[in-house]
Amino acid sequence: MKIAALDIRACRHDDATIPGAAMRDGQAREGLEFVVYTLRTEDGQSASMFGFAGRSALGAAHQAAASLRPFLLGRDARDREAIWHDWRTADRWWHHLPIYSFGPVDCCLWLLAAEAAGEPLWRFIGGARAEVPTYASSLVLADAEAYAAEAVAVRAAGMKAYKIHPPGRSLAEDIEIHRAVRAAVGDDFALMSDPVQPYTYDEALRLGRELERLGFLWLEEPLPDEAFSALRELTRALDIPVVGTEVLAKHPYSVAECIASRVVDAVRADPSWTGGVTGTLKTARLAEAFHVNCELHTTIFHPLEMVNLHLAGAIRNCSYFEVLWPIDTFAFGLDRALPIRDGIAHLPDTPGLGARLDWDMIDNATIAKV
Amino acid sequence: MKIAALDIRACRHDDATIPGAAMRDGQAREGLEFVVYTLRTEDGQSASMFGFAGRSALGAAHQAAASLRPFLLGRDARDREAIWHDWRTADRWWHHLPIYSFGPVDCCLWLLAAEAAGEPLWRFIGGARAEVPTYASSLVLADAEAYAAEAVAVRAAGMKAYKIHPPGRSLAEDIEIHRAVRAAVGDDFALMSDPVQPYTYDEALRLGRELERLGFLWLEEPLPDEAFSALRELTRALDIPVVGTEVLAKHPYSVAECIASRVVDAVRADPSWTGGVTGTLKTARLAEAFHVNCELHTTIFHPLEMVNLHLAGAIRNCSYFEVLWPIDTFAFGLDRALPIRDGIAHLPDTPGLGARLDWDMIDNATIAKV
Repeated sequence: MKIAALDIRACRHDDATIPGAAMRDGQAREGLEFVVYTLRTEDGQSASMFGFAGRSALGAAHQAAASLRPFLLGRDARDREAIWHDWRTADRWWHHLPIYSFGPVDCCLWLLAAEAAGEPLWRFIGGARAEVPTYASSLVLADAEAYAAEAVAVRAAGMKAYKIHPPGRSLAEDIEIHRAVRAAVGDDFALMSDPVQPYTYDEALRLGRELERLGFLWLEEPLPDEAFSALRELTRALDIPVVGTEVLAKHPYSVAECIASRVVDAVRADPSWTGGVTGTLKTARLAEAFHVNCELHTTIFHPLEMVNLHLAGAIRNCSYFEVLWPIDTFAFGLDRALPIRDGIAHLPDTPGLGARLDWDMIDNATIAKV
Repeated sequence: MKIAALDIRACRHDDATIPGAAMRDGQAREGLEFVVYTLRTEDGQSASMFGFAGRSALGAAHQAAASLRPFLLGRDARDREAIWHDWRTADRWWHHLPIYSFGPVDCCLWLLAAEAAGEPLWRFIGGARAEVPTYASSLVLADAEAYAAEAVAVRAAGMKAYKIHPPGRSLAEDIEIHRAVRAAVGDDFALMSDPVQPYTYDEALRLGRELERLGFLWLEEPLPDEAFSALRELTRALDIPVVGTEVLAKHPYSVAECIASRVVDAVRADPSWTGGVTGTLKTARLAEAFHVNCELHTTIFHPLEMVNLHLAGAIRNCSYFEVLWPIDTFAFGLDRALPIRDGIAHLPDTPGLGARLDWDMIDNATIAKV
């Protein structure tokens, strides 16, 4: 099962425009850029996967072509563990690729193996459950009314929980938003908060106390993932679980410290940013051994979300499957919708991914083959 | 001093070929790829700097053009601290650039400011010393004889110390190499070891003990920088200083834990991989407050090495200035040689960088303007 080719397409989906205010980086995205990788073996097998690309699909594609392609060609596609380790070494010596480069290629290796075994990926890994409750994650919205309305819509759509990405402009506004959402959905609907690092320690503590009063399920990334010392204190000060680590580079080694010394109460991982299926499984199993949850992080793009769902089906210490909302904004790249019915994601029965990529859409989105 | 333009060139220097065996990533580099950034202000000032690019200057250039250019345009070039913080936030939200992208642009901001003040960069930051002892760092060489011969040549060239990057194929071979080098240069020449993560904990401990017997100055990166738990134990087990952190993403927040809980005895930072002059100063000053050294890490490319030298001239808690050997392999990009005489690097007296970029060389090396 020798790797014969790694095809790389730089793509841009113009229909998925995200307003500048929806992400706190001050830049509008007219169109979403991504990469599509296809790994081909000498015996004619292939697997394809989307990859995150930041704002430059061309940049991500050129890097993968220069670094990952020569690294992979000629290797046995079944040697996933050796490839993961050898890439870690090679990357450290000269490449220093972004956190999102290796993951999709590792996903292709796992899909090839699952397809060869005739099993859906989650059962190839080792089935844990066939159904996973799903929650919707907001983008950054305009005001408390917008969040409250979206939370009600999410609940009406059958989703099992709603996670707020508040604007982070001020603690007072963020607290107002969390209160408005709780008031809108009532006490029995699960809510989480993910402010993405805007606060001082004191502000994070005050928001956490408010979320405890409001009955939120967890407080995610109130401080930078790297701020181990401050997070470790916050985790001890608050009863509400503090969650993080999705943007730490070099899972699982970097996360070991967080888990072993409980920098956070639950960690985050995903196949896009934290090293593919291999990296995510390492982090999830490491967390499990410490009785810590690994809450899978959205991979944004639905083909990657399918891999994420398979991981959720093979991991016990994860509460939910996460999807960005509105889901239609991100519903491209697959030949079907994500298999979510009434807020329950259903693991596929068919071999491999359990869905095909939408190659017409990909052809239309292709900027360059690199 | 509003930023009007960020010019970005993807470059490749074909004369600087590094054999595949010289870096432990299994890939020969025929030619060295890099990026040249030029930051221009509305009032006609400009500063330029090289940037690391892994194996793909095109990839690095496209990413910087898509992410850093729109972020910087229109900002006041004097607002370095705000730019550093705002970029940290923006990068976390969507960009996730490689560790090497932001540093060179931050260097340009500092050079603009130093030139406007009419001061050499090190004195603009705050002069600490005008002369810095310099050491040579090996690539990975063929065998013990090659290392011993290079160490003797380095000493003959007046350099003040020699750092071995051993092959890391086996502990026995690496120990043989360190012994051969010590025997070749005698007991009075300073030696360091930088194996770059090949070992088990036990092997690292055994090498450390041998280096203590051989009178080495420090043991660098014997284990992955992310392996905090293992490194913290190793640091306590060994008398010889254990050094690391040059490849941790997101200095200085990530390094705070290493310094505060002494994961390593001394940290590493540089303006290329750890956030420019701003990021390196943050890490160096943080380390200083804990009575920990910040040993500046080579930036490979000599224009960046000049910035590194200025930092060495503005930081007390750094023993040496580091350059890769053979120095001629990397002696391109400046209009003059690095100001090293008899192993002492001399800080320039002229404003800004104290050297000009070699634009003829850069023109010849330019693959694309992005």
